Amino acid sequence: MQAIGFEQPGAPDVLAIGEVAVPEPGPADVLIRVAYAGVNRPDCLQRAGAYPPPPGASPILGLEVAGEIVAVGAEVPDTMLGQPVAALTPGGGYGEYCTAPWNHCLPVPEGMDIKTAAALPETLFTVWHNLFERGMARDGERVLVHGGTSGIGTMAILLGKAFGMEMIVTCGSETKCAAAREIGADLAINYREEDFVEAVKAHTGGEGVNVVLDMVSGDYVPRNLKCLAEDGRHVTIAVLGGARAELNMAVVMMRRYCLTGSTLRPRSDAFKAALADEIAADAWPLFARGEIAPVMDKTFPLAEAAAAHARMEAGEHVGKIVLEVAGAS
Amino acid sequence: MQAIGFEQPGAPDVLAIGEVAVPEPGPADVLIRVAYAGVNRPDCLQRAGAYPPPPGASPILGLEVAGEIVAVGAEVPDTMLGQPVAALTPGGGYGEYCTAPWNHCLPVPEGMDIKTAAALPETLFTVWHNLFERGMARDGERVLVHGGTSGIGTMAILLGKAFGMEMIVTCGSETKCAAAREIGADLAINYREEDFVEAVKAHTGGEGVNVVLDMVSGDYVPRNLKCLAEDGRHVTIAVLGGARAELNMAVVMMRRYCLTGSTLRPRSDAFKAALADEIAADAWPLFARGEIAPVMDKTFPLAEAAAAHARMEAGEHVGKIVLEVAGAS
Repeated sequence: MQAIGFEQPGAPDVLAIGEVAVPEPGPADVLIRVAYAGVNRPDCLQRAGAYPPPPGASPILGLEVAGEIVAVGAEVPDTMLGQPVAALTPGGGYGEYCTAPWNHCLPVPEGMDIKTAAALPETLFTVWHNLFERGMARDGERVLVHGGTSGIGTMAILLGKAFGMEMIVTCGSETKCAAAREIGADLAINYREEDFVEAVKAHTGGEGVNVVLDMVSGDYVPRNLKCLAEDGRHVTIAVLGGARAELNMAVVMMRRYCLTGSTLRPRSDAFKAALADEIAADAWPLFARGEIAPVMDKTFPLAEAAAAHARMEAGEHVGKIVLEVAGAS
Repeated sequence: MQAIGFEQPGAPDVLAIGEVAVPEPGPADVLIRVAYAGVNRPDCLQRAGAYPPPPGASPILGLEVAGEIVAVGAEVPDTMLGQPVAALTPGGGYGEYCTAPWNHCLPVPEGMDIKTAAALPETLFTVWHNLFERGMARDGERVLVHGGTSGIGTMAILLGKAFGMEMIVTCGSETKCAAAREIGADLAINYREEDFVEAVKAHTGGEGVNVVLDMVSGDYVPRNLKCLAEDGRHVTIAVLGGARAELNMAVVMMRRYCLTGSTLRPRSDAFKAALADEIAADAWPLFARGEIAPVMDKTFPLAEAAAAHARMEAGEHVGKIVLEVAGAS
């Protein structure tokens, strides 16, 4: 089959299409004929050599796909054969065929575009767990999300609004702020023009937000804490601005903050399956009924994965970048 | 009545006994004739001018007492009159009479020494909330507590062992380590002789602890995180070593840590009442039945409160220091 690989880590142009063997599904896996694969920030980090795949994972990039199940492992119900699914994959999404544990798959319902489906799993699983479970955001609360027009940011806006939260985001341009507002953000702050701490305080009448979903970290952390109301939660899902942060622990204690975070890929199969179950019950119906839909940026042919990565790294995108895989060969 | 006051914040010797009016209980308060008052670290901070009482609180020191209820507010059941109680107070404990919300009181059962009862509320409420609720420590888990022979440290050892945890503490001398082991600590590390990070790793076979209950903060924080297993919780209840801490947020994220903390005094009356209910149901019976008892250090007459503070600040104590108040005049 055709798949994207790279010889040495590096810039986007190390990515090249080539011929590899179709993967073998394990006993609890399905084999998916991939229609579309989502592109995510961790793919860029992996390509750059900064985020090696966990032991046993495919060396091929790609953490989410949508397509049709064409083979199943011995432990998987036969009834899944032929089913169109969106899947959180352990890697290997940038190829014509990809395996995933059967219980990390969500059915693509009538009326949901298969390209849209491919854009959902990674950000949906990440935002669901970090914003709602780890961050314990609930209806009526205020949430601050950096990177408001990223895949994560746009998913956070959609889910937060769907569940009754006030969503405040930061973006790097007025165009992106407008896009974020269009998607549903209650306030979009252009961080290049305005101090987001002051903007959050002004917007909330000095009360601050209940949760910060942060992918910047570094010197954003003390600034984020200045935006947090008492009992606020600070959830780190990436450290794009650097990992080192200086905190005032007296403030953490006196205002009863909670700083936490997580990464999705290294979690156990059982954790991901449990998360998939919750999402299937509580979030998937919103997408299935068309009440919310992921924000789609641009689609690239699989062979142009390098251009897709370059676009993500340039920060030009609003929403999800996907690769069209079907018909790659 | 006689009470301890101070004209200006400062060293322990600013404390002096004097005559003040007996406080008036509010509608939801009881008036307690104080037999004994517990001495706590926040009292020292308040005396030094570093921890002003919250608005409306008595300017008199003292966050816990035991004694007899001699008057009740309009909303309080008359049946509480004459009841011996231990109470978490909003301040004012270092006096012959003290008010407290009626639902912040716990009955002193037959067979419990009234002096022992006075030594319980502040550390019991603090450890219960921070270790079990905020830190979510549960049976079978490992806990690291700094200041193993302090009032908080000894209470943490007692409660942790009573609820099936492995308790590791640090202390500043071999004598204190021996005392901590005597109280029940599974491992007591003399931090002046040994790197506690290495000692924790060696003791736990490299696995680390699930919860750190920290009152040091500052440069202990990154060292504490090195002791924490994945999904570990770091709970700050004081910053005796300084408030500034440098964290690696990538580690917080990748190991799914949670850093939190709290202070008890500024919490709402409703919060404290709910906490008192839980403690009455789940912890108080252990003390009432004599299965565990607080570790008592030394008792000073009320008039010698200055000497009690000096002892606490010198770090000479093991367990609780109390003031004998009854008969002060």
